[in-house]
Amino acid sequence: MNNGKRIWVYDTTLRDGAQREGISLSLEDKIKIARELDRMGIPFIEGGWPGANPRDGQFFWKLHEEPLKQAELVAFCSTRRPHVEAREDRMLTAILAARTRWVTIFGKSWDLHVTEGLKTSLEENLAMIGDTIEYLRCQGRRVIYDAEHWFDGYKNNPEYALLTLKTARAAGAEWLVFCDTNGGTLPQEIAPIVEKVRQQLGIDPDEENAPQLGIHAHNDAGTAVANSLAAVNEGARMIQGTINGYGERCGNANLCTLIPNLQLKMGFSCLEENQLGRLTGTSRKISEMVNLAPDDHAPFVGRSAFAHKGGIHVSAVAKNPLTYEHINPEAIGNQRRIVISDQSGLSNVLAKARSFGIDLNKDDPTCRQILERLKILESEGYQFEAAEASFELLMREALGQRSHLFELKGFQVYCDMLRDSGNAIATIKVRVKEEDLLEVAEGNGPVAALDLALRKALVKFYPEIANFHLTDYKVRILDSGSGTAAKTRVLIESSNGQQRWTTVGVSSNILEASYQAVVEGIEYGLYLLQNNKLELSGQFCPLGII
Amino acid sequence: MNNGKRIWVYDTTLRDGAQREGISLSLEDKIKIARELDRMGIPFIEGGWPGANPRDGQFFWKLHEEPLKQAELVAFCSTRRPHVEAREDRMLTAILAARTRWVTIFGKSWDLHVTEGLKTSLEENLAMIGDTIEYLRCQGRRVIYDAEHWFDGYKNNPEYALLTLKTARAAGAEWLVFCDTNGGTLPQEIAPIVEKVRQQLGIDPDEENAPQLGIHAHNDAGTAVANSLAAVNEGARMIQGTINGYGERCGNANLCTLIPNLQLKMGFSCLEENQLGRLTGTSRKISEMVNLAPDDHAPFVGRSAFAHKGGIHVSAVAKNPLTYEHINPEAIGNQRRIVISDQSGLSNVLAKARSFGIDLNKDDPTCRQILERLKILESEGYQFEAAEASFELLMREALGQRSHLFELKGFQVYCDMLRDSGNAIATIKVRVKEEDLLEVAEGNGPVAALDLALRKALVKFYPEIANFHLTDYKVRILDSGSGTAAKTRVLIESSNGQQRWTTVGVSSNILEASYQAVVEGIEYGLYLLQNNKLELSGQFCPLGII
Repeated sequence: MNNGKRIWVYDTTLRDGAQREGISLSLEDKIKIARELDRMGIPFIEGGWPGANPRDGQFFWKLHEEPLKQAELVAFCSTRRPHVEAREDRMLTAILAARTRWVTIFGKSWDLHVTEGLKTSLEENLAMIGDTIEYLRCQGRRVIYDAEHWFDGYKNNPEYALLTLKTARAAGAEWLVFCDTNGGTLPQEIAPIVEKVRQQLGIDPDEENAPQLGIHAHNDAGTAVANSLAAVNEGARMIQGTINGYGERCGNANLCTLIPNLQLKMGFSCLEENQLGRLTGTSRKISEMVNLAPDDHAPFVGRSAFAHKGGIHVSAVAKNPLTYEHINPEAIGNQRRIVISDQSGLSNVLAKARSFGIDLNKDDPTCRQILERLKILESEGYQFEAAEASFELLMREALGQRSHLFELKGFQVYCDMLRDSGNAIATIKVRVKEEDLLEVAEGNGPVAALDLALRKALVKFYPEIANFHLTDYKVRILDSGSGTAAKTRVLIESSNGQQRWTTVGVSSNILEASYQAVVEGIEYGLYLLQNNKLELSGQFCPLGII
Repeated sequence: MNNGKRIWVYDTTLRDGAQREGISLSLEDKIKIARELDRMGIPFIEGGWPGANPRDGQFFWKLHEEPLKQAELVAFCSTRRPHVEAREDRMLTAILAARTRWVTIFGKSWDLHVTEGLKTSLEENLAMIGDTIEYLRCQGRRVIYDAEHWFDGYKNNPEYALLTLKTARAAGAEWLVFCDTNGGTLPQEIAPIVEKVRQQLGIDPDEENAPQLGIHAHNDAGTAVANSLAAVNEGARMIQGTINGYGERCGNANLCTLIPNLQLKMGFSCLEENQLGRLTGTSRKISEMVNLAPDDHAPFVGRSAFAHKGGIHVSAVAKNPLTYEHINPEAIGNQRRIVISDQSGLSNVLAKARSFGIDLNKDDPTCRQILERLKILESEGYQFEAAEASFELLMREALGQRSHLFELKGFQVYCDMLRDSGNAIATIKVRVKEEDLLEVAEGNGPVAALDLALRKALVKFYPEIANFHLTDYKVRILDSGSGTAAKTRVLIESSNGQQRWTTVGVSSNILEASYQAVVEGIEYGLYLLQNNKLELSGQFCPLGII
């Protein structure tokens, strides 16, 4: 069963993933996602196409200043243009300026795309592949070659398609990656083609320090994961895909599905065991970062992936989980969810407590109380996956460790676009150290005004909070359960310029939900300060919004 | 390429699909869905488990009164209980009372489940399978046998698993269906098992009037579609699945993906050609019926499945669609969509205009004006990718085709959580048909209040808007470029209960951004109505939030 042979995971969430309709990543988003992927132990992270837009160039510059810990950051680019010297192609100049050790170059495999798309000759396309890779090798880069439209090209003209790969290999590419660009190929076609081409190229998947094969599948036929598995079965050793399967049209191969299939079912090694346990958390964190609702029904990492309903299932699973579960959910950081019983979750609470530096015992009744409170709040729409600051406050509350630094009495928000500028005005009433304070502030929007008013009141007592600012704000509408009003969940990220923390608020009124999250954001910042967990900083990154 | 050989589609949306967390079907919903599936030409429709709950019994009774046009309605049930005569088992009495021609009986294949789950002997389980099927055959029923946990059972004890199928066949079952109940099997395991068992049973997939094989896959490993295709490749002739892949945990095999793969790529025949063209419509209609948002990224039927972004793609697809499309979207009733974004060129604008029914010429200066306006707005943070309604309004404005049905003078929003309930109150001033109107309304949140106030003012002039409602609301904070205030982008989805359209607003104030999007949502709905592009509906789906 493959004995833990290594499969190299190549993540393209930041490029192909970002092509999904509805995803629009800022520079900051991209950096956050890259660091999250790095923490999970993904060995190759494709960052973007330098030169295609200014933001991707900045991204590589930023990460060159503060590099990733483990991962190889990869810059992506096409082969040189027809009839232009590689060293004079400004795209290649841009990819070199990204200063990554590894680069991915994509080129044409399908003769139709060469003659009709590029409007050049088949020979020139081979020269473009060869020159580009040779030039980059001379500049000290290691090269992954993505063979675009591989399967369509191979079916149409196998000799020519094969020549493109031989050219790439001869020029020094270390990985040759079969891309199913239109995503329409089925696994039963993938397997024989990969097997045949592997033999034609004489590639031995077990040989170290020799060029190897990879697969890059799209999901237009709903088989991107199966296509990737088929290619691995026939000797591919790199899988390219995205977190949560994000990508253009129907998306790319979903790494959150592929990795556990390869590692837990097929016996390959993709991530270290403890990193595999971060998969569910990373999937959900990244869905928050790109502001898309997580797919509850996603294989392995979905909230419903290990949900058991009936009593028979529950007791059978308790005796022998394999009767109704195909894998152990903890292996990928997910959990069994049982609707009737509360068996699940305790270990999660314990693990979270440990991560906050709280020593909690499984038999301590507080532990169960926290779990109960958590379940009630989650059923009301709260979500603590991405709001750890709020969860730590909840936990410290249960442990009697939450110091109530101020008590809120209420707020008013007013915004006049009829006779006025449209700025929002917020009034807040708060009791601090036995003093009642009423403060008012004006902001571009109501949330900024609420935040300013609260800080205006508190700064007299806690001058350090002058440094706190809102840095991100996310809103999600939650399904109304059964006819009752839908709820709004707000996640607010606060910062002192160096550290960031996230809090959550839920209400049918977006202002109330925002207010809850703002208040906890300030409270948590003060808690960090008072416990010397916050470095002081003069840097401001004000949001000044909403 | 299989020459149009028949594959029998068996839909279990009404039973397995309804197990999905979040789906809860009324009797009326079930009947509507059954009729929709019937119209699409699905030959087998599983209606439920009579006797398991009163609603399923009523469902069969209702459809016996007013039968489906073409489809075979199927009732589902387990084998008899251990050590009970089949004719005395009340579950079997109930399934007979459903008065369907076909019944599906599921039984245990995995010895572990027999001894540990049923707590009976392996022999008794065989007797249960045989007796049940014989009894139902004697009562004039035709029988499909679902072999539960087939692959796990076969891997554990192949001899016994095979015996269960032989027993079912000997008792008169006409279909033997391999169920991957835990959904964890991979295609590379499915293929050899189906092939081997088919040979052991001596089943010829081309023989008419002889028992045949089927496949019932779950998606826990993300390969339900590929698993079904693998089984069909090895001789299975029935596919069981659900519309949109609904089902417990990670869902069942998605018929909306399976059917086009089998029919358009593998040359089998599942539906008649004109019925296949209903697939996209049926997928979306059923998602409305079960009250779940359609998956825009679903293979074949998703809104983004044939969406093109870049200018190069757009012009290439116009010349030869197969360069960037794996099938013709019209074959399954979907359509190519040109996505408007800041990467758009003139050809995108032209293609988009055509899709709105606007005849625009490339050399028309208006075309370039629209593109310029689009780029300016996108640089300010607007995004039209997901807000086509706003883009159509922008385009019609440029063409002098936008009728200004009302003119807004401004708004006020007030929310008091200090002395009051915290409901938001919005005042709006609007000029309609030379009359100035001031209206005020209260809502759970400020956006709902703004929406209500505006509709309160306009309903006197346009009574149809009483049917419009907000159905989704998304917020995104855009990074402040370099020190200037960050902006908020709001996307609002409106609906009249049948159609949905999305509009966008951008401002540094979330209330102003929401207000812009609400106003355009109402304007666009009115535009659709006045141009007879909107079906009227009495159905409401109010959001009542934010």
